[in-house]
Amino acid sequence: MFFKVKTSAEVLEILRGFDPAGTETIFIGDALNRILSQEIIAEEDLPNFRRTTMDGYALRACDTFGASENLPVFLELVGEIAMGQIPTDIVTPGKAIRISTGGMIPEGADAVVMIEYCHSLDEKTIEVGRTVSPLENVIMPGDDFKKGIVIFERGAILRPQDIGILAGLGIQNITAHKRPKVAIISTGDEVIPIDQSPKPGQVRDINSYTLSAFCSQAGAIPVNLGLCKDNFSDLREIVAGAIETCDTVWISGGSSVGMRDMTLKVMESFDNAELLVHGIAISPGKPAIIARIGNKAVFGLPGHVASAMVVAEIFLNPFLSRLAGVVNASDDHHFYLQAELTRNIESASGRDDYIRVKLNKRDGRIFAEPIFGKSGLISTLVEAHGLLKIDRNTEGL
Amino acid sequence: MFFKVKTSAEVLEILRGFDPAGTETIFIGDALNRILSQEIIAEEDLPNFRRTTMDGYALRACDTFGASENLPVFLELVGEIAMGQIPTDIVTPGKAIRISTGGMIPEGADAVVMIEYCHSLDEKTIEVGRTVSPLENVIMPGDDFKKGIVIFERGAILRPQDIGILAGLGIQNITAHKRPKVAIISTGDEVIPIDQSPKPGQVRDINSYTLSAFCSQAGAIPVNLGLCKDNFSDLREIVAGAIETCDTVWISGGSSVGMRDMTLKVMESFDNAELLVHGIAISPGKPAIIARIGNKAVFGLPGHVASAMVVAEIFLNPFLSRLAGVVNASDDHHFYLQAELTRNIESASGRDDYIRVKLNKRDGRIFAEPIFGKSGLISTLVEAHGLLKIDRNTEGL
Repeated sequence: MFFKVKTSAEVLEILRGFDPAGTETIFIGDALNRILSQEIIAEEDLPNFRRTTMDGYALRACDTFGASENLPVFLELVGEIAMGQIPTDIVTPGKAIRISTGGMIPEGADAVVMIEYCHSLDEKTIEVGRTVSPLENVIMPGDDFKKGIVIFERGAILRPQDIGILAGLGIQNITAHKRPKVAIISTGDEVIPIDQSPKPGQVRDINSYTLSAFCSQAGAIPVNLGLCKDNFSDLREIVAGAIETCDTVWISGGSSVGMRDMTLKVMESFDNAELLVHGIAISPGKPAIIARIGNKAVFGLPGHVASAMVVAEIFLNPFLSRLAGVVNASDDHHFYLQAELTRNIESASGRDDYIRVKLNKRDGRIFAEPIFGKSGLISTLVEAHGLLKIDRNTEGL
Repeated sequence: MFFKVKTSAEVLEILRGFDPAGTETIFIGDALNRILSQEIIAEEDLPNFRRTTMDGYALRACDTFGASENLPVFLELVGEIAMGQIPTDIVTPGKAIRISTGGMIPEGADAVVMIEYCHSLDEKTIEVGRTVSPLENVIMPGDDFKKGIVIFERGAILRPQDIGILAGLGIQNITAHKRPKVAIISTGDEVIPIDQSPKPGQVRDINSYTLSAFCSQAGAIPVNLGLCKDNFSDLREIVAGAIETCDTVWISGGSSVGMRDMTLKVMESFDNAELLVHGIAISPGKPAIIARIGNKAVFGLPGHVASAMVVAEIFLNPFLSRLAGVVNASDDHHFYLQAELTRNIESASGRDDYIRVKLNKRDGRIFAEPIFGKSGLISTLVEAHGLLKIDRNTEGL
């Protein structure tokens, strides 16, 4: 069967065809970076009483009109507001009540003068050296959020301050999308567990650990299903189980033609399988395969970890956002930076080339130094700070 | 006692005087974003055998010299390399062995020709249409990492690819700094737990939840010690316990002069206490207090969450990095962005002003719109995308 290599844009479009993971109810204390699956509406006014934002004296603004440092007014001090209590005293003309930040404005008062502008003459009298406007230093009920308004839209990603506001409104639990569960399977007869010593010809399982950490970084839950040798029925059994329990399945390894064919054969052996992508016009990462089995996306990733990570950064990042329920998830999670290349790079047209670069700052300019070295080295991943993209319609930079 | 307000730079310098949290041994599968407390040295060559990066035929490069598409050479096919096995066949002049990506180069061969450049004439003969250089498509032992070299310096923050490389070298456990434990205490007679309905004058505990999520975001472990009413001996007891069990203590609330004084009195009541900062030349956030009790930093944060978060972003972020063991931790964790202000802003000189801004993109230009509104509103935190800093030596923008 002949399958045309797809462009990055085509692959990203295909991945938008999968639905977000289900939803669950979670306590707001555990909701950092979680994605709301429904909008949040304020069920009460915040604040729900008139409060002051300053330490000072609650008074009637009109009693201070015309007051200045040289021509102060004198008011009678009739008490102090206790924090968290409904004031028992009332402000009448010519009177003031001591109040602390966050305290409830007493009846009769409509403003607060900051303590810095006042002098205490005796226990019963203060001197106010400033004109205060009505509502000065006063927050009214609902000034932050009025009952009934939408505070967060569906798809919002909760930041620390957002969680604080939910707490302020007494919303203890929210409904969020589940963090996507990603089944990770490493394949290849040459791959051994990391606690074993490789004999010549063998390598330890780098991919499971790298891809698991990549999932965690992206907010997903990696489910490490371990190693699978080059055996059709073993791999099929693991994939069958993974499809049942996880939201997506990532099979890495099998960069040789034989293993790639087996991964493909396993995918196609499911009744409800549809091969979506067989090769992507990028380098590295070209041999990636994507199938839909039921409603799950199953990926065959390049065996070489540097190639697998390029595919992960370009395609799996936006895909995980989509599964996590980000509304209008951008395909591009990356920070862009303008830098000067330290040398020219050639690139074949017709594919997107991704070159790992190291960034250096000299004399206030940022330089990007391409990290070359034999394809197949993983040390380039450690040196690199980022990826340089050379578009398929460009022949070099 | 008169205590001069400190500048941001002075406060950051003071915070560099605290030592990182202790260290612990952790499994690499749990080590994402953890900070190494010792350097990592390769204890073996990676890879530890000659392997190929391509599917093709292992051969002697000299047997292909002069070969081209029009003038191919013919080689005898003498076997196939099994993945993960030491080859049993040897390549002698005029011979070639089929090999898959990652396979071990057999004795006698010094290069691999990609399968794309070959034709299989019969079961025993291949046609090679290209000249291959010695070591082409071959990775030598130690090409990635040579035994004995330093792979990661002390203080490195482990990324997914770094964890992969540790796996590849068989390093299952590393020694990392502990994630700092942060005791979080909310104070104020007006503050109630979030599962209660506030009576007039009361507000729910926003700060504990916001600061806890802030800690988690920064990679620290929040220890939420709940609410404390305006009572010296209660607060002292909680702080005494927190100093024993946590790496730093954050007391929030008490923005009124009375509560601030009590927080200060509690700090000073410890024999080994030293008041380091009493007021910072920033807005908002000026009333922040910092004491050293023993070897722990104890913070009195503004009661208003928007002010507390400015202090957190400017000072607690680099402080947590320092506790977490980041070597040469920058005081500045922020991404900077160039944007055009939508209006002029005035600022008092002598302090750093932080204004929350909302970013908009129009016609390819980025605009920063200051979010004003009464000080004391928390809704500004939800609207904002970032902070605009107006330096203390600038009077407006």
